[in-house]
Amino acid sequence: MNKHGQVVTTAVANMDIHDIARAARTYGIARYYIVTPVAAQRDLVRTVLDHWQQGYGATYNPSRREAFNRVAIGETLEDILRQIEERSGFSPRIVVTGAALDKDLISCRELQVMLAAGKQPFLLVFGTGWGLAESVIARADYCLAPVRGAAGDYNHLAVRSAVAIVLDRLYGCRED
Amino acid sequence: MNKHGQVVTTAVANMDIHDIARAARTYGIARYYIVTPVAAQRDLVRTVLDHWQQGYGATYNPSRREAFNRVAIGETLEDILRQIEERSGFSPRIVVTGAALDKDLISCRELQVMLAAGKQPFLLVFGTGWGLAESVIARADYCLAPVRGAAGDYNHLAVRSAVAIVLDRLYGCRED
Repeated sequence: MNKHGQVVTTAVANMDIHDIARAARTYGIARYYIVTPVAAQRDLVRTVLDHWQQGYGATYNPSRREAFNRVAIGETLEDILRQIEERSGFSPRIVVTGAALDKDLISCRELQVMLAAGKQPFLLVFGTGWGLAESVIARADYCLAPVRGAAGDYNHLAVRSAVAIVLDRLYGCRED
Repeated sequence: MNKHGQVVTTAVANMDIHDIARAARTYGIARYYIVTPVAAQRDLVRTVLDHWQQGYGATYNPSRREAFNRVAIGETLEDILRQIEERSGFSPRIVVTGAALDKDLISCRELQVMLAAGKQPFLLVFGTGWGLAESVIARADYCLAPVRGAAGDYNHLAVRSAVAIVLDRLYGCRED
């Protein structure tokens, strides 16, 4: 959604591709899917990925290539669900996130227990703009509690930061 | 340092200003200092801050203004230490961070205990590029253990992500 609560298509930010791919690789995530219905945006993402996987970027920065090997592109949520089913043989459980979610929430700890318990894949859905559309939230099996700081009165993290924090809570080396 | 281990001055990335200011505000950090010896870069940062604090951005996105109210600019590490002394009356303890740090490390939990224990301010130092220069590390009172994921074999997070994760480990709502 945009800041007025209207359903819109947000642009894919180049920094989101890089930062989230690196965080996903750090925490051992199987796939980071970038989803947009705009064909030109998918082409742009493909060009960025190609640069770092096969172009000059692959030799300039091999760690970026390694991170980008786990990035995939999709047109819709349905498309991603199908890709996951093809890869894993399972339908994923869908977990939506967002700073404004406020009912029937599960905590990162509860999700951590579920992730460790089964073979079924989980799809965590993060959105840019001002939160996920209701139609996406309606598809969710679980709603993850928003990330809060100690004060708890400010919840305007970049999606890149929220992804990093949630992955650390789920998969970080807790003795650090 | 750059990727060849040479001491260089990295550019200030616009996204670092935004993302780190928002994370710092989320977790109740007193000040986020952006340090660069390049006067033109400091002017650029000031222009960005002014746009979001007083310009069109302040009305377009008030939460950004709120985050940017805690951002300050400095020329050198010494300059920042002086600013902190003026603000708080104390010399801060200096904690350096970096993916390559490997000796005499303290954990986030140990740092959390120290932060909670005293009145003395702590300055956490994050660098862009390929790690902080030796001369900065030599000034540190403590070296923070690098952020690691479950696998532990990939440590190439964006500095924006590393800051978000470390602040969450230190100040996050742990019941989430």
